Amino acid sequence: MTLVLSNDEIAELLPISDCLARLDDVYKEAGNQRAISRPRSDMYGPVHDRGRYVFKTMDGLVPKYEVAAVRLNSDVIRWSSGPAGVRKDKQPVAPGDKWVGLVLLFSTRTGEPLAIMPDGVMQRLRVAAANALAAKYMVQRGPSVYALIGSGWQAGAQALAMAEVFSFADMRIYSPTRENRERLAAELRARLAVPVKAVEDAPAATRDADIVGIATNSINPVVELEWLAPHAHVSCVNERELGEGILEHSSLVVVHSRSDRPYNYIVGAGEQPIRAHDPQEGLPDELKQARASRPAGGVDLSTQPDLGELLTGQVQRPKNGTLTCFVNNIGLGLQFAALGALAYERARQRGLGREMPTDWLLESVHP
Amino acid sequence: MTLVLSNDEIAELLPISDCLARLDDVYKEAGNQRAISRPRSDMYGPVHDRGRYVFKTMDGLVPKYEVAAVRLNSDVIRWSSGPAGVRKDKQPVAPGDKWVGLVLLFSTRTGEPLAIMPDGVMQRLRVAAANALAAKYMVQRGPSVYALIGSGWQAGAQALAMAEVFSFADMRIYSPTRENRERLAAELRARLAVPVKAVEDAPAATRDADIVGIATNSINPVVELEWLAPHAHVSCVNERELGEGILEHSSLVVVHSRSDRPYNYIVGAGEQPIRAHDPQEGLPDELKQARASRPAGGVDLSTQPDLGELLTGQVQRPKNGTLTCFVNNIGLGLQFAALGALAYERARQRGLGREMPTDWLLESVHP
Repeated sequence: MTLVLSNDEIAELLPISDCLARLDDVYKEAGNQRAISRPRSDMYGPVHDRGRYVFKTMDGLVPKYEVAAVRLNSDVIRWSSGPAGVRKDKQPVAPGDKWVGLVLLFSTRTGEPLAIMPDGVMQRLRVAAANALAAKYMVQRGPSVYALIGSGWQAGAQALAMAEVFSFADMRIYSPTRENRERLAAELRARLAVPVKAVEDAPAATRDADIVGIATNSINPVVELEWLAPHAHVSCVNERELGEGILEHSSLVVVHSRSDRPYNYIVGAGEQPIRAHDPQEGLPDELKQARASRPAGGVDLSTQPDLGELLTGQVQRPKNGTLTCFVNNIGLGLQFAALGALAYERARQRGLGREMPTDWLLESVHP
Repeated sequence: MTLVLSNDEIAELLPISDCLARLDDVYKEAGNQRAISRPRSDMYGPVHDRGRYVFKTMDGLVPKYEVAAVRLNSDVIRWSSGPAGVRKDKQPVAPGDKWVGLVLLFSTRTGEPLAIMPDGVMQRLRVAAANALAAKYMVQRGPSVYALIGSGWQAGAQALAMAEVFSFADMRIYSPTRENRERLAAELRARLAVPVKAVEDAPAATRDADIVGIATNSINPVVELEWLAPHAHVSCVNERELGEGILEHSSLVVVHSRSDRPYNYIVGAGEQPIRAHDPQEGLPDELKQARASRPAGGVDLSTQPDLGELLTGQVQRPKNGTLTCFVNNIGLGLQFAALGALAYERARQRGLGREMPTDWLLESVHP
C-alpha cells in the first residue's frame, strides 16, 4: 500500500526537534557527497484570468534512508504592488480554495512509491530547521537575544526551531501590523519558557540581538546594517531582505545551496533555462517596472560555502565577535526526501494515513 | 476526483492515429514557443545488491490544453556485457515484479491534480509517433519500402505509426533472433494491409529502403552508411545506433530536442550536473572499460533543428534524393503533458479509470 498523509498528520509525526536531528544528519550526508538534489526548476505559463500558472519541481536522493523524492508545486500566482513593494501570492484556486504542493517518496531498493504527502508543513519545518542548524554551527558563544522580523506561519516555526537549539533570555518580534506581531508573541510565550516581546519597529527588535531571523515575503530590505550588533548572526530566505552592506561586512556567508536560482522555463522564451540573477524572472510585464532591482554587491552567493559543507567542518569558523550570515536561498530536494522518509517511517509505525493500492502506481511493461 | 489510469486503459484511449494528431499539434505549439519542457534529469544512487537506483524526471507545460505534467521513473537498473556490447536493463523489482514510471497531470487553471497514469504505453506511443511525424515532414516523395531494425515492443509501435502516415508497398524487419523478428512480422501482417517480411540480416533489410527505422537498445552501430539508398530517411533513438558517416552524409539532421543529454546528478559527484557527452555517465566502474566510446563525428546535435521547428516550417526542406536523419534523442515533458491530457479527457468522457479523492492531494496551508 502507498500511504497518503495529510499536513495535520505530518505536523504530528514531525516535531521540530526530530526535524533538526534528521536534517542535521542529511546535510552531513550531502556535505560528504552521499546525498544529492536535482536543483529546482520552475515552468511559467502565460497569464490567464486567475493569475500565472507555475509548475515547480525539485528532486532528492538519500541512499542512507533508501529514498528518493520529488517535491512539486502546481500554483497559480499573482504579483501585486503594495506599500512594501511588489509581493507574490499563491492563489488558492484548487477545489475548496486550496493549494497544490506534493512530495512523492520512492524506495531506492524496489523503486516503488512509498508515500504521497502535501508539502506545506514539511516546507515550513525544513526552512525553520535549516536556519536553526546554520545558527547552531555558525554562532560561537551561547546567544542571549533573538530578534525575529516577520510574524507569519513561517516566522513562528523559525522561532520554535531556534529555541530548540539555544536557550534565549529574550525574544523580540517585529512585523508591520501590531495585531500580527502581538498574536505571534503571545503564541510563542505560551509554548516557550522564554520572555517574548512584540516591539514597535525593526531597529528596536534587532538592537544588540545575537541572532536576527528574517522571515518575510518582502523583496526589499527589511534590516539595515547599522542596526546590527557587530557580532550578530543574520538569517534570511532571500538576500533581497538584507540591507546594503550586510553580506559585504559578514566575515562568513553560508548559503543553503550554491544552485541559488531555479532553472526557469517560460512559455514564449523557448526551452533554454533562464538563470541570470534577474529578480524579474517570470514577472508579468505590467509589474516589471514596479520591482526593485538591487545590485548584489560584492558577494557572489554562488561561490560561498553551503550548509552541508558547514556541518561537515569544511568551513573555517568565523572570528569571535564578527557578523555572520546564512542565506536560506532555495529549497533542496534532499530536505523533502529526508523529512518525507521520517514521516513515512513513523506513519507506518503508528498506523496513520490513508492507503492507496501500490499496484495502481506500478506497471508490467516498460519500453 | 483525481483519475488513476492503467496502461491497458491508456492503450485503449490513445489509438496511434490520435497520438499522431495530438503530437503534431503540440510540436507546432512548441515550435511557436507556446509549449515548453523542463529537460530530463537523472539522479544516480550508489550500486546496491539489486542494481543501481536511478530517479528520472522531466516536466512539460502546454497552455493550449491547460495542463502541466511531470513524468518520472523510479528504476533499479543493471548494465551487462553481452555479444552486442553493453546493455542496460531496468530491473522489475517493485512488488509483483513490476516497474515504476508515472505521469502526473495538473490543471493550469486551478493547479489541481487531474490524473495519475503509468508511463509505459505513453512512452511507446510518443517515441513511435515522433519518428513518424519526423518522417512525414522530412520525406519528400511517397516512400515505398520501410525497413525496421529491432523487433521489441518499441519497434512494433514504430511500424504501426509509420504505416499510419505512409502507404508502404513493402516492410522488412531484421533483428538478431529469428524467432523475434518472425513473430513481429506476423503480428504486423495481421494488423496492416502491407506485406511484411522478416529478413536474415540488416543489409538485406535496409537495401533500397526509403525509410529505415532503428529501434534497438544497442549502444553500438546497427546500420552502416554503405547499406543505405542515397535518398533514405533514417530514424533512431540514439545516435550511437548509426554507423560512421550517416550523420555526416545527411543533408538534413533533425533532433527531437537540442537539450540532448539529461542533467545527471550522481551520488559521490556532488550536485553540479554532469552534461558532457560521455557515454559512460552513470555507468558502474566495472563496466566502463567495456563500453565503446565512438567520436560524435562532425555533426553537433546540439545545433541541429528540432522537431518543433521542422513542423512549423522553420527548417529548409532537404534536396530530393538526399539522405536525411531524425535523431529521437531524448524525451520531452510536453509529450507526456499532451498525451496525458488526451487520455484524461477521453477517460472522463468514457467513465474509465479509478478515482481518488482530489482533496487527499490538496492543502489548506502554504508557507
